[in-house]
Amino acid sequence: MSEDCLDRQLTFLAEIDALKSVVRQSPLVNRSRRENSAEHSWHLAMFALVLSEAGPAVDVAKVIAMLLIHDIVEIDAGDAPIHGAYDAGALAYAERAAAERIFGLLPEPQRDRFLSLWNEFEAAETAEARFAKALDRLQPLLLNTLTGGGTWAENGVTEEQVYERYGPTIQRGSPALWFRARALVRRHFNTC
Amino acid sequence: MSEDCLDRQLTFLAEIDALKSVVRQSPLVNRSRRENSAEHSWHLAMFALVLSEAGPAVDVAKVIAMLLIHDIVEIDAGDAPIHGAYDAGALAYAERAAAERIFGLLPEPQRDRFLSLWNEFEAAETAEARFAKALDRLQPLLLNTLTGGGTWAENGVTEEQVYERYGPTIQRGSPALWFRARALVRRHFNTC
Repeated sequence: MSEDCLDRQLTFLAEIDALKSVVRQSPLVNRSRRENSAEHSWHLAMFALVLSEAGPAVDVAKVIAMLLIHDIVEIDAGDAPIHGAYDAGALAYAERAAAERIFGLLPEPQRDRFLSLWNEFEAAETAEARFAKALDRLQPLLLNTLTGGGTWAENGVTEEQVYERYGPTIQRGSPALWFRARALVRRHFNTC
Repeated sequence: MSEDCLDRQLTFLAEIDALKSVVRQSPLVNRSRRENSAEHSWHLAMFALVLSEAGPAVDVAKVIAMLLIHDIVEIDAGDAPIHGAYDAGALAYAERAAAERIFGLLPEPQRDRFLSLWNEFEAAETAEARFAKALDRLQPLLLNTLTGGGTWAENGVTEEQVYERYGPTIQRGSPALWFRARALVRRHFNTC
């Protein structure tokens, strides 16, 4: 580890402190405020650590690494709310530029590994990426059911829209988790 | 994965949301507020992911798991500021009770694994625990040097006290990181 490499790594670690100031839509369980993307990423990593047995056979360490870095691009590109309208093409372009800039602060071999991991998450083709994406949908679903509706209540989201917006991603990553999540949604909407 | 196990895991994951409301002393880099223990844990996991090459040979996945869970006891026991006075015996007792209660929400085999991991971190005897502890000291040191002194300035902490309070733990986990951290401290205090 050369001193120059270490300097670049510390610069990157200082830069990503900004993720603590990116505010998401989801409420905390105690409803005191909305969560930010840094603490959301911690919570998701904990979901992976705890729920890895509920998914298909995955490399849990890889899922956790993906979840730790998956939102870092929001430092430049912002958080796109699931229930809002946005230009998906423009967002994808902004996120790619953000990934190049922020991961580009790291020494080259590490930059390449982080970019590759972020690309794998975005592509959602491997079992690890699908499981990570499922958790990234399950966590806000859980927060909403624990807070009287959260972003669903705020945005007038129907039970049918919840199934459409959360179901495919969670089910693709873990049918067992979707089976349980669907029951939580039904209970929330009083349809079971 | 039985339904009962999954219910207990989701209860645990909802409970630990409270870590987002435990406020630490360290400032964010942009100085807008103090950081909380959930986003701190994310930041530390990123330190481990990025800096693992700077330490001794360690199981990085284990270090990350340790750092993700290390502060969960603060939900009940609170955060003990490094520069403040507190009753170490009473704190250790409160943290142990918190670990039993919160990890006790999980299914037994997982509860035992998490308790074991938390105990290993606290004991600071394995290479993984020592490296994790070093990062837990390095991160606030970095935040302080990036914010004109942070908690050092607030508490009138001298350069000598910084060496005493941060040096042994960081050096024990990674001499290379302490070599670099010491240079940051010297630059901050204008002694190099």
